Amino acid sequence: MSFVQYPADHPFPIQNLPYGVFSTDEQPATRPGVAIGDYILDLAALSKTAHWAKSPVDASVFQTANLDAFVALEPEDWASFRAFLTDILGPSSTLKADADAVLVPRTAKSTHMHLPIRVGDYTDFYASYEHAFNAGVLIRGPENALQPNWKHLPVGYHGRASSIVISGTPFHRPTGQILDKPTDKQPIFAPCRKLDYELETAFIYGGSPTKLGQRLSPSEARKHIFGLVLMNDWSARDIQTWEYVPLGPFLSKNFCTTIAPWIVTPAALEPFKVKQYEHEPALLPYLDDPEGYNYAIPLQLDIKTAESDTYSHVATSDMRHTYYTFAQMIAHHSATGCNIRPSDMMGSGTLSVPSIDDAPNDDGLGSLLERSRLGRKPFALNDQRTDMTWLRDGDSVRITGVAKGDGYNIGFGECEGTVLPAVA
Amino acid sequence: MSFVQYPADHPFPIQNLPYGVFSTDEQPATRPGVAIGDYILDLAALSKTAHWAKSPVDASVFQTANLDAFVALEPEDWASFRAFLTDILGPSSTLKADADAVLVPRTAKSTHMHLPIRVGDYTDFYASYEHAFNAGVLIRGPENALQPNWKHLPVGYHGRASSIVISGTPFHRPTGQILDKPTDKQPIFAPCRKLDYELETAFIYGGSPTKLGQRLSPSEARKHIFGLVLMNDWSARDIQTWEYVPLGPFLSKNFCTTIAPWIVTPAALEPFKVKQYEHEPALLPYLDDPEGYNYAIPLQLDIKTAESDTYSHVATSDMRHTYYTFAQMIAHHSATGCNIRPSDMMGSGTLSVPSIDDAPNDDGLGSLLERSRLGRKPFALNDQRTDMTWLRDGDSVRITGVAKGDGYNIGFGECEGTVLPAVA
Repeated sequence: MSFVQYPADHPFPIQNLPYGVFSTDEQPATRPGVAIGDYILDLAALSKTAHWAKSPVDASVFQTANLDAFVALEPEDWASFRAFLTDILGPSSTLKADADAVLVPRTAKSTHMHLPIRVGDYTDFYASYEHAFNAGVLIRGPENALQPNWKHLPVGYHGRASSIVISGTPFHRPTGQILDKPTDKQPIFAPCRKLDYELETAFIYGGSPTKLGQRLSPSEARKHIFGLVLMNDWSARDIQTWEYVPLGPFLSKNFCTTIAPWIVTPAALEPFKVKQYEHEPALLPYLDDPEGYNYAIPLQLDIKTAESDTYSHVATSDMRHTYYTFAQMIAHHSATGCNIRPSDMMGSGTLSVPSIDDAPNDDGLGSLLERSRLGRKPFALNDQRTDMTWLRDGDSVRITGVAKGDGYNIGFGECEGTVLPAVA
Repeated sequence: MSFVQYPADHPFPIQNLPYGVFSTDEQPATRPGVAIGDYILDLAALSKTAHWAKSPVDASVFQTANLDAFVALEPEDWASFRAFLTDILGPSSTLKADADAVLVPRTAKSTHMHLPIRVGDYTDFYASYEHAFNAGVLIRGPENALQPNWKHLPVGYHGRASSIVISGTPFHRPTGQILDKPTDKQPIFAPCRKLDYELETAFIYGGSPTKLGQRLSPSEARKHIFGLVLMNDWSARDIQTWEYVPLGPFLSKNFCTTIAPWIVTPAALEPFKVKQYEHEPALLPYLDDPEGYNYAIPLQLDIKTAESDTYSHVATSDMRHTYYTFAQMIAHHSATGCNIRPSDMMGSGTLSVPSIDDAPNDDGLGSLLERSRLGRKPFALNDQRTDMTWLRDGDSVRITGVAKGDGYNIGFGECEGTVLPAVA
């Protein structure tokens, strides 16, 4: 319970306490905060008051433009600071008398969210069995759907950090090299015709950096997970098809990646641990993670067209649908000795839910590639659009996630972006 | 000419003035400098003297741990600062009297070089026609050596920024998933058996960042090239073969990337411009670069084994061997609207020289993959090793580059690294 009032089903109760970075019209400097109900606890402001006396973390850590300094502290610091927050936001906290000075209305038009960290390196995995299988069936057929390596390692690729944007940032439809007709030999330079979303979750590595050559076991790696955010890995499928052999997706993935503003911590997600996937064949020992788990967090994807005022439901997935645990992804990433630094971000890959009777569960598909069967099977988006295949200009895509706990909810906020027309 | 004395064939004459970051045992703070003869002009120290009065750049730009602030200035600032340096290091400069306070012995054991910038995003291209063709022949045969997209766009992939290290940094042989025998279905986790180098050049983007959605033409892009460095993109070929389908190289490339400490500027390379490659078929208009050029800079690769005191010559290549100009690589990178920031780094890809009578010119091959024909054709490294295929523990690889100008040389320094045994 908190002295801040909110309804029982609120996404940001005191059990959540996600971290973000915000500014206000009155105070345009970006600064770290914690969501509590419909407010943001301004950590920079709090750190300048007498209430900070009991904080286990130095004030300077939050008197900065982002959360990088806090993310670089140790897991014990995150835990003790969470205890401090739980106490200072508690029902009998003396902060209540000074609340006006440190609580900012979260949903006011004058409050703006920003990227919570400066991402160093960004890696995206491809770890949902269902998504990899569905995509493989569409591209190569059911016999060869999964590549030979897929069940042995979390397939991943390095992504682009510069174009990671905060929810609410619109982006232009990318223009690039595509084949006008699939049999063409000569590409054209044209606006992407097969613009897609990918319903994902990302996690942020924190704590000490590893050294070059240092490997982390999954159990060591797990402690480094600072928090989780919703992510949309926008993808240009036609650009991807033409460019990706032999070195993988490049421009088809780097024009925009949207994340939600709130980083939800593993501490808040403790009650939502579920069994990890069974691994058959068994994984190599360096990936073995007997204590590993996934999180059961229902995720929803909705689309609003330019002609509509309301969002239409398109997909329901769940964060639990990765074949590899986040800890295994980090362990694999460090296997060759690649060093990992605080504020590095790693994505899960598109999260699709298990098939039903060998047929994809349309509501559970995390990309349009799967949902529209590569554009061959249009579906009804809402009353206004019955022939949905790929994203059109003006479409807004919103990912949300809320876990239902015992008497409270843990929300992840919104990851939203709108497609602007291609630049001429 | 300079008041600093050096022989006529010195790699760092006043016509060069490459930028780097160094520290000394006496003053361990890393700080920017410029190489001149056997000295480093300490820009942080210089900025605190009266000699800075004529500098067109604010002192604060160099009173930092790296060159990021300078790289983020505009091309006009780089040009005016070069003119200032040329003047202040000139034969009749009043700095001569105070030289002891600002010149640091470059080759002293107490002087240490560091990464010159904090790389934001690192991208590696695959732009040498000869390398791509040679590799394609070995993997797919001569009929399908080049993929259909290769002559239409500079193929590239996002690399790992965290593991970029400065010349002289040893690294452990990577361990990863490989197939014990090519026909195996189950991988093993073992030290890489096919460790390779890639003789490359990288360039550093500078000036204003682009906005998300902003495209740069090649002629606009060219102005953003702050400078060039030698690079070795160490590669684990067996890990790569197993992991790279379908999303490209990942762990096989991210365990270490070595760059030389000195960033040579386009201003110093003006005399070494040469005609770019002919493009047949013609490139799409967004890549067309009629004023484009390459640089003719001879590059050399040498190897020293653990048993030897001296380096053996292995390869001679040239920076001119990219089918696409650096400006075209940037233009392509921005085509979809991907934003580019100062201190982003992009690699050329392995630089191999044109074949002779359709047979690869063994001395001109920039990787062991090519030189040893995927390990099938051992070659003599020196008297000590007649069966060279892949790198062994203790091997040091050194890339150097020196352009011979009219009465002076422009050197790139050394890009060196040593293979340590795999971590147990």
